Parts: sequence; structure tokens; C-alpha cells
Amino acid sequence: MQRIGVAAAVTLLGGIVQLSMCFLRLGSATFLLSEPVVSSMTTGAATHVVTSQIKYFLGMKVPYFSGPLGMFYIYHYILVNIRSAQVVTTLISIFAVIILIVVKECNEHFRSKIRIVIPIDLLLIIVSSLACYFADMETVFGIDVVGPVPKGIPFPQVPPTNILLDVAVEAISFAVVGYTVSIYLAYNSAKKFTYHVDENQELLAHGLSNVLPSFLFCIPNAAAPARTFLLYSNGSKTQVACLISAIMVLLVIYFIVPYLYWLPMCVLASVIVVALKGMLIQFRDLKKYWNVDKHDWVIWVSTYSVTICFAANIGLLFGVVFSMALGLVRLARTRTLNVTRVDEGDKDMHSEIQSNVKCVCVGMPLFFFNAKKFLEETNSKLNARNSIPEHKSNPLLSPATIGTCNGDASTETASALIIDCVGITFFDYTGAAAIAQICLELPKNGTDVLLARCDVSLVKALQYRGFGIKHQLYFDSVKSALVHLQSKQSSSTNLEAADTSDL
Amino acid sequence: MQRIGVAAAVTLLGGIVQLSMCFLRLGSATFLLSEPVVSSMTTGAATHVVTSQIKYFLGMKVPYFSGPLGMFYIYHYILVNIRSAQVVTTLISIFAVIILIVVKECNEHFRSKIRIVIPIDLLLIIVSSLACYFADMETVFGIDVVGPVPKGIPFPQVPPTNILLDVAVEAISFAVVGYTVSIYLAYNSAKKFTYHVDENQELLAHGLSNVLPSFLFCIPNAAAPARTFLLYSNGSKTQVACLISAIMVLLVIYFIVPYLYWLPMCVLASVIVVALKGMLIQFRDLKKYWNVDKHDWVIWVSTYSVTICFAANIGLLFGVVFSMALGLVRLARTRTLNVTRVDEGDKDMHSEIQSNVKCVCVGMPLFFFNAKKFLEETNSKLNARNSIPEHKSNPLLSPATIGTCNGDASTETASALIIDCVGITFFDYTGAAAIAQICLELPKNGTDVLLARCDVSLVKALQYRGFGIKHQLYFDSVKSALVHLQSKQSSSTNLEAADTSDL
Repeated sequence: MQRIGVAAAVTLLGGIVQLSMCFLRLGSATFLLSEPVVSSMTTGAATHVVTSQIKYFLGMKVPYFSGPLGMFYIYHYILVNIRSAQVVTTLISIFAVIILIVVKECNEHFRSKIRIVIPIDLLLIIVSSLACYFADMETVFGIDVVGPVPKGIPFPQVPPTNILLDVAVEAISFAVVGYTVSIYLAYNSAKKFTYHVDENQELLAHGLSNVLPSFLFCIPNAAAPARTFLLYSNGSKTQVACLISAIMVLLVIYFIVPYLYWLPMCVLASVIVVALKGMLIQFRDLKKYWNVDKHDWVIWVSTYSVTICFAANIGLLFGVVFSMALGLVRLARTRTLNVTRVDEGDKDMHSEIQSNVKCVCVGMPLFFFNAKKFLEETNSKLNARNSIPEHKSNPLLSPATIGTCNGDASTETASALIIDCVGITFFDYTGAAAIAQICLELPKNGTDVLLARCDVSLVKALQYRGFGIKHQLYFDSVKSALVHLQSKQSSSTNLEAADTSDL
Repeated sequence: MQRIGVAAAVTLLGGIVQLSMCFLRLGSATFLLSEPVVSSMTTGAATHVVTSQIKYFLGMKVPYFSGPLGMFYIYHYILVNIRSAQVVTTLISIFAVIILIVVKECNEHFRSKIRIVIPIDLLLIIVSSLACYFADMETVFGIDVVGPVPKGIPFPQVPPTNILLDVAVEAISFAVVGYTVSIYLAYNSAKKFTYHVDENQELLAHGLSNVLPSFLFCIPNAAAPARTFLLYSNGSKTQVACLISAIMVLLVIYFIVPYLYWLPMCVLASVIVVALKGMLIQFRDLKKYWNVDKHDWVIWVSTYSVTICFAANIGLLFGVVFSMALGLVRLARTRTLNVTRVDEGDKDMHSEIQSNVKCVCVGMPLFFFNAKKFLEETNSKLNARNSIPEHKSNPLLSPATIGTCNGDASTETASALIIDCVGITFFDYTGAAAIAQICLELPKNGTDVLLARCDVSLVKALQYRGFGIKHQLYFDSVKSALVHLQSKQSSSTNLEAADTSDL
């Protein structure tokens, strides 16, 4: 009874946490969760559940292992004490698993032909309970049975509130992990039936469906992938299906439960393990991640490893942090300058003016992560000898034309650099400082710097660092920058260049 | 002696950690450190040092407070026991600080006129020691003096290795924080004298300069901003300056140190506090961050707060994680589609073919962070009514033309969508899945999808998901995609479109 009290307390607090997340509008934080993380974490959690069922499967007594690597201690204990496994129980388990898998596969395959689905779980439970009762397996073979199960729904009462603080970690973990699994199923449904998921609405629903049932001493609940896929395959489309299955469960609780006394534990374990099949075969995802993106494969494997070594909550946390860190590292390493192709019109004008005007197009936000790389790339572009002629007929853009407008093979330093800032969707202080550094240092070597298509906020930041409008720095397009260079060149005898700069 | 042993152990282990970081090539991880983080962390560390000197400043006895918020306990204690402060000590301190600041400011201001720098620290130390000795202030006023200082360099011996494990946290913290401060000074120097910093070389140098001196029982050391700026202002350019100052320090250790017995602690504290001035006035950075990027301002303030509440290592860790998280959030929120401007040539062809062909240009890497946003933006572009006429004369690009090639006001669904993938510098599984989803779902509604300028790896990933070359999906430019649409339209009576797709 005390254990059930603890479970009810976790349910209550987990529900309260989910409701708080809803009121704090944290539902949208699901964008932090990538598919490999959720897939590996749920597979790891399923592995834990399967591990916990193995002792019933083999009819063994296994002590409770907790803490890190607990799963490996369980397997080690089982392997060492494999001789204490009950042969009859093991045979029944294997038989049950085979029947369940075969019938479920048949259900899946012939669903379109025979319009009825065989409720093999229910049949197996009934048959095995009857067999156990009539053959008196409990005493003859020493098979574990479920034992007395209370009938009906208990009278509502408040869960033990004095232990709420002690179960805080479990409750928060459950709230986050449960929500993660549920929201991913919701996204799946939304994609299948093309509707929109409101994450905070989901949080409210899950929070309430934990808080209220906790007064009936329910265990923590979340959406069940296996049940959801079963409903899909039966052709369910609306939530009426859930209502019907809830009524069925209610009927079972009131009328069938007393007869579950004789249900062998090994059969129950088989039903649970086979129900987790959908989550366990997510191992197949590994192949697609390997083919599409190796980084995601690494995320999957490492998150799965952490999950089975520790627990689902730690695995989830690790996966989120690791995938974010990996994403940042890739961002830092990706090129900051875009492949640019100059418009034909601009190119004509370009060659008219000066052969050593260079042009780079920033294709990424500039912030502390890639500001240094941006400086390096810009410098290497400036110093690169332009050895690429203009192959207009070449169907694939030659990689060496990246970021260079200029087709001339010149070894002298560029006389002007045009930076197309249209891709800088945001910047931080370091990014603005990098551009300011270019604007400050290149003119010392006789290279003019012109910024095209700057965002207003970037202009403001550069003005704060001393690059005012009077510097003839900002242009609304690469073309107008080229026009400015042209007019400057033609009036180069005058001390003051014509004021064609605008903003 | 035991305390010095602990310090030497920290030095030894910290140096070993830095050497290990060097051999693991972790030097390049400095790109994780943004300027606001380093600035606020060093300011916070300087605040801690100033706090630790205040008791000498006021001539008070303050118990040792450790743990979080220790700094506030110290200030609270001082405020409560302010009556126990020694008036003479406080006056000497104030006097010393004023002299130091004034003379240093004069040094700085008149450096170009008088070519000599007044060594005010040294003068003040000598004068105050002499005054203390002759006036016997130690007994008359009860002023704390430095006391006996051992002369010369101790005989080399191995630091206590049995406590290495106990000081592991301190040593790792010191190794990382010390390296951070040093590498930032190195970057500063590199910018000033235009040379390149090899981060791993720096790690090797700092590691060795901690490991070897630890056998002489040195305290952990790193580059000192105050000393570096002093050398700059004296006109030092090469490391010969360091050699000279090292020889000077050696002379002081052998010949002057015995006379430091009578140096008042309050004067020493004043020298330390004024030496930290350069780090403390980094508060001024707040203004520039506020003007350039408010996010960096938030990072500065929060990292500083964490540093003064806890310690420099925790502040640094917090700052790095927080600035990364903030960067990711901004990335997730920034637009994924670029402002596109269609070439004139393309536009002519465009209007020739079909009025309801839309074109989006992906301007960011696509990964789990922004894949959802990309889908939303693409959908909103598809469904947007094209109400923007072509204002070629408008100097500023009207924001509503973003990502739309098409100028017609049409309410019907687009007949084709061209996705320019040139900006996808990398992608993960989620990003590839988002594009695959578009390729799969839009054709169901009668909208053709054409991908222009895909990277080879993206083509491979999409092929794995079932979009082979036969789908006429991949084009080497937006133009060739338009050509394909044109030929398809002209041969629309045929069942098979002309095979103009390539790649």
C-alpha cells in the first residue's frame, strides 16, 4: 500500500509540474528535441522495461539493483544464476511470445482482407489463466501467478503529500520524459491526419490526466506508442476510439479482474515485452540515420548508451545537450560565405570598373561562434588569386567560384571589397566587431570596404563603433556599391568622391 | 607551510591538466568563449579579489566565509562590524589608493611627453615600509605589517602528491580559467601586433610554466592583464621586456624582500586593488554591449552575477553554456528563407512561363533546431497572396518581396515551388526530412517541387528517402528549373515531360 502511495504522489507532483510547464508556456521548448534523441531515449527506456520483465520470463528471483549500470548488474546476475531459471516458465514465455508475434504480424498483414483483428493479448491471458487454474500450475510447476487483484476503482483520497519533496526528482523526470514521448506521438498523429498540435494544450491535458487520477492512486501515465499504433492499424481516426477502449478497460476492471488471479506472470511479461516491440525496433532507425546524417547516428548511439547505463531522464538530458552542442560545433565549422553568382548586369558593370574589386556574400548569422571563421574566410578570399575563368556553360557551379565575383587572374591586392550582408539574419557583439575590424583594417592597406544590404540594427551597431553614414559605407545593393566605385574611380582626380552613398 | 604545499599541488595538477589539454588539441575550443563571457568573468574574479583585500584595507579581522554567496557574507560582516575598523589604517589605504591612481593616470597621460614612467608602486612600498619602520606604526597604531618574508628561492622539492586528488576540482578550474584569461590577452596582443596565436602552443607554455615552478612551491600562475597593459604602455614590443622584468623580480626577491617586513598590509592591499583597476573598469563594456547587442548585455550581467555569487570557474561554465544556449535560441528563431532578388533574365523567363511559380531560397543550415520553422515559412510563402508589384526603382527592398519571385496577385495554389538549396551549408536528419516532406506532400495538391543547387550530400540523403534522379527534382540552378517548367508546360499534352533534369 505504501508503494502505491509513493506512485500516486509521483503522479500528483508530475501532473502539477506539467501544469506549471503549461502555464509557463514551456510547451514550445519541444523544438529542442530532435527525432534521434527521442527515438534513442524511448528505445533505451523500452530496453529497461524489457530487462525488468526478464526475471518473470525465466521464473527467477532477481534482487533489486539500482543506480548507474543497474541493467548490466541484472544481466550479470541472470547469467551467473541461469541454472535457477524454471524450465516450464521459460518454455511458456517463449511459446507466448511466438504466438503473440505471429498473430500480430498476421493481423497486420491480412488487415485489409479480413476486416477483424484477433485480440490475441486478451485471448492469451484468458487461455493461460484458465490453463493455470485447471492444471493447478501454481503448485505443480511452481509458476508465479499475478495473485489477488482488487476489483473496481478505489474510493478517492488525497495521495500522501508528506513525501512530495522526496519524490521531486522522479516527478520532474517523469513529467518531462512522459511529455516528450506523448508530444512525439501527437506530432506523428498530426502529420498522419494533417492537423496542428498545440504543445501547451497537450501539457494541460497530460497535467490534468495525472493530477486528477492521482486521487484514485493511479500510476504516472503518458501516451502509449504501442496502443496508438494499434488504434491506427484498426482504422481509428477520432478520439471516440479512446472512449470505447476506456469503457472496455472499465468493464475489465469490474468484471474480469478477479479471474486474473491465475494469470501466470510469465505470460503477462510476454504481453508487455511484445507490446514494446514497436519501440525496440527503432533500432532500425540507425540505418536511416547512418545514410542521411552520420552525426545523428552518433547522437542516437550515445543517447541510447547513456539511457541504458543510467535512466531515461538522464539519457534525455544528455541527448538534448549533446545534440545542441553538436549542432553548434557544426555551425561553427560551416562556411560563413555563400556561393554567390553575380547577376549578368552587375557582372558587366563590374568588369567595366575595376578588375580587382572583390565581393563576398555573408550567408550566416554572425556571432561569437563563427565570427573568427568569417574573418579567416574573408581574408583568404581577399588574398586568393582569382584563377577561375567564367564557365557559363558549366552546368555545375565550380566550387572555386564560391564567393568571388571577379574572374581576373590578378596577384595585386584588391582595391575594394564589397560585403553583401543580406544573409546576416542576426549578429552579436563579436560578429559586429568582426565586420568593424574589416572596415577598420582593410582601408589601411588601400582596400575600400563597402557594405551592401545591411540590416538597420547592424548599421546602428557599426555606427556606435564609429562607422557613421559619412563613411560612404552602406549601400542598398551590390549594384549601387559598384556604381559608387565607378563614380569614385571616374572622379578620382577630385579629392572628394561623389556622394552617391545612401542607406 | 601546509597551505603552500596545497597551493603547489594545485599548481602542479593545473599544469598537468593544461598539458593534457594541449595534447588533446583542446586549445581550439576557445571559440566557445565569447568576449562578454570572458569580460564579465574576469570582472567578477577581480571583484572577488578586491573583496578579499577589504579587510586589510580597513584593518579589520574578518572570518573566512566559503561557499555560495560568500562575498555577500563578507560585506554583511564588514557593514555590521564597521566600528571595529582602524581609522589610521583606513586613512593610509585611502591615501595610498589616491596616490596610485593619480600618478598612474599622469603616467598614462604624459607618457608621450616625459619618456619615463614613475614606478609608483615600488616607491610607495619603499616609502611606506620606511615610514612604518621609523614611526614604529606596528606598535603605535597597531597597523598590520607583512611580517617575515623568506629570502631567495627555496630548494626544489616535489609538491605533496598525496593531496592531488583532493585538489582536483580546484586544479581543473584554475587550468581552464587561467588559460581563458591568458588566451584572451594573447588574442589582444596578436591583434595589436598582427601575428597569429597557436592555442595549443599557448597551452603547452602555460602548462610547463605551472608544472616546473610547482617544484619551487609557486602558486598557480597565468597571464596578468594589468602587467601586460603596463608593458604595452611602456612601449614594450617583444618578450625581452618579460626577461628584464623577470630579472628585476629576481633581484627584488634576493635583496629587497627582507625589508618588506615593515610593509603595511593596507598599502599592499591598495597596490593590489589599483592593479585590478583595468579589469574592474570592464564595467564600461556594459554600455557598448547595450548599444550593439542587448543579448550580449544580458550574458555579461548574468555571468557577472553568477561569478560573484559563486566563483570564477562556475561563472565561466555558466557563461559558456548560457551564451551557447542563447545563440541556439536566436538561431532557432531567425528566418530560414533568404531575401531573394531574382536576376532580371530569370524574371523575364519566369513571367513567360507561369504566373504562379514560387521560389524560396534557403539561407541557413537546416537542422532540428529550425527545420520546423523552415516548413512553416515555406508554407506561409506558398499560401501568401502575392500582392507585391515590381517596384524596380525602390532603392530599399520592400520586406514583403522576401522570398517571392512572383509578382502576380493570384489566389489559386501555386503550380510549382522552386527551392534554392544553396544556403544549406549542412543539414541533419530532421532537416532532410523536412525537405522530403515538402517533396512528398506538395505534389499531392498539384504543386510541383523543384530543388535547385542541392549539395551532393543532400541529394544522397533525399535519394535514400526515395527521391531518385528520375523524379526530375534536382537542378543546377533556379534558371534551369524554370527552363524545365517551361518545357514541361509546352509539352503538357504529352504524358512524359521532356527529360531536361540533370545532376
